[in-house]
Amino acid sequence: MDQTITYPELQAFVFAVFKAMGCPEEEAATATAALISADLRGIDSHGVARLSGYVRLWEAGRIIAKPDIRIIHESPSTAVVDGGSGLGLVVAPFAMKVAIEKAKVAGTGWVSVQNSNHFGIAAYHAMMALDNGMIGMAMTNASALVAPTFSSERLLGTNPICVAIPAGEEPAFVADFATTTAANGKLEILQRKNLEAPIGWIQDEQGNPVTDAHALKKGGALVPLGGDREHGSHKGYALGAIVDIFSAVLSGANYGPWVPPFPAYVPMPENQPGKGLGHFLGAMRIDAFRTEEDFRKNMDQWIRRFRASKPVEGQSHVLIPGDPEREMETERMLTGIPLLPSVWEDLRTTGEKFNIKF
Amino acid sequence: MDQTITYPELQAFVFAVFKAMGCPEEEAATATAALISADLRGIDSHGVARLSGYVRLWEAGRIIAKPDIRIIHESPSTAVVDGGSGLGLVVAPFAMKVAIEKAKVAGTGWVSVQNSNHFGIAAYHAMMALDNGMIGMAMTNASALVAPTFSSERLLGTNPICVAIPAGEEPAFVADFATTTAANGKLEILQRKNLEAPIGWIQDEQGNPVTDAHALKKGGALVPLGGDREHGSHKGYALGAIVDIFSAVLSGANYGPWVPPFPAYVPMPENQPGKGLGHFLGAMRIDAFRTEEDFRKNMDQWIRRFRASKPVEGQSHVLIPGDPEREMETERMLTGIPLLPSVWEDLRTTGEKFNIKF
Repeated sequence: MDQTITYPELQAFVFAVFKAMGCPEEEAATATAALISADLRGIDSHGVARLSGYVRLWEAGRIIAKPDIRIIHESPSTAVVDGGSGLGLVVAPFAMKVAIEKAKVAGTGWVSVQNSNHFGIAAYHAMMALDNGMIGMAMTNASALVAPTFSSERLLGTNPICVAIPAGEEPAFVADFATTTAANGKLEILQRKNLEAPIGWIQDEQGNPVTDAHALKKGGALVPLGGDREHGSHKGYALGAIVDIFSAVLSGANYGPWVPPFPAYVPMPENQPGKGLGHFLGAMRIDAFRTEEDFRKNMDQWIRRFRASKPVEGQSHVLIPGDPEREMETERMLTGIPLLPSVWEDLRTTGEKFNIKF
Repeated sequence: MDQTITYPELQAFVFAVFKAMGCPEEEAATATAALISADLRGIDSHGVARLSGYVRLWEAGRIIAKPDIRIIHESPSTAVVDGGSGLGLVVAPFAMKVAIEKAKVAGTGWVSVQNSNHFGIAAYHAMMALDNGMIGMAMTNASALVAPTFSSERLLGTNPICVAIPAGEEPAFVADFATTTAANGKLEILQRKNLEAPIGWIQDEQGNPVTDAHALKKGGALVPLGGDREHGSHKGYALGAIVDIFSAVLSGANYGPWVPPFPAYVPMPENQPGKGLGHFLGAMRIDAFRTEEDFRKNMDQWIRRFRASKPVEGQSHVLIPGDPEREMETERMLTGIPLLPSVWEDLRTTGEKFNIKF
């Protein structure tokens, strides 16, 4: 049975762990907010379930608690940030702030990041732009779990993209998605329950479509959005590739099969061409295009028209990207965050390392 | 049997038609190059097969041959262009040039376009950036043929995205794709041959998956990339929505179900909220991020590693986005462009309107 914890309790615990790792106060707070935003929004695979993973990367010396994060190159609307091997949970918000500041002056801001680590959910970073009345974008590469169309090798991460767009009276449009048919977190749920995956999610070592949810451990791969060539997997492959190139080739991070793995026990790929993993963040000021008032009014109309669309049988209504996560956040803020027994135990063990009681 | 025509012959004919419509010399040349680039690259549905469609829109007064195309709002890295109801084939290259000029100064340039028409293939416009050593992006909305996930109504166009990225010794990475499982052009091929479509391409009027390639004429819809919810169609829906919002809500064009239809005989949607249809163009200068030399070297490594990936059985090798279209262009430049008898006849009839012999 899941046990539930309140947001303030979880927040206090995670903050204490990051502080104990040596993160400066402000950075520990940022990392905590970024990490737990996943649990709040229902993306349980990317939240505190990964806290022990970050701690192990820190123990292995692959995450620096007091990183030297800095701009190493810039133009009026762009920058490259060196994350100093810091937590992506801290590096990405730093880079997003740079993008927002650039946008205030130049209309848009675009920041590519090298030498970083996993940044949690893309939506946290992209949504920082909303508070400034801007459109936000965030993407990241990740270690290779995905085979390009026609390939039997894993060369791309699940490489998510988030685009957050402000509206007027309606809540913001927030699309945050992996560029694969299914995120790895969904596969992990099937693995735990010993269920089969739908055809079109994974392939085996030879590249054949399979339903075995454990196929990745046997040399298989996730497949790009589209599933197979006939259903457009070359488009999902292209999307994942664009994320990889913007995040890493543009910044000087590692790309393709050379991206560092999240589990600390997995050895680093040899002959890495760059530094750490990469992100790409963007901010666009609305009034660099048209008046905020006109834009927000039209966005409201867009959202209302789509939400009022005639649903297919068995569905109550058509969703706007971001609806389910926003509703989940409202609910979990009130009723607390349910944690699997295994996650609960993992947090307890992680706390013990630092003499912090969970 | 298809008949083949050489590139210069086709070019001369199309140029003469645009001139006869009243396009100024330079704009007729641009429109010709943009339109025929589709035929050269093997995207036959978007090339001269549509010439008569553009002519009919001009006859209906919905395309202006001598448009007043101008910047109506700008910031250092952005602009909004009013296309003056011109050919999208001319308006989009104008806007892309603005994006490139902005990028020269500000590092990046982003142009949203209102009051335009169909712009042919996105790749033509995005690839203009390559000649300037920049990354190029182009997207456009289009009249509604696609139902969002869980919807039985058509609210989005096939809304394509192109991203063109320069490399060093390797040819550029050029991904150009509709945000649906299958482009409408592919469906038209099945319709002509009276073949069934694969499940996951289209749905009927109630939203059920069907194989009837004619389902669109019976109130059905194309479906977003992913095909169904279980295979991530909400991601394809989000992508199509982002294209719609960047192209039209950001510019003041029409969006969603209000986008003007391409066939001139289809009445305009009522209560349109904007002007014409919209595009979104972008250019990023490589050296606004890192040295061109480092970037191009890493892009070559990226491309070579992916191309050398172990293929699945039955495939000779893994493709890089843009490979098939580039190979087709090389071939058709040499051997000519094959045209279906119906297209040949359509061009002949179109020529007769202006006393131009095909």
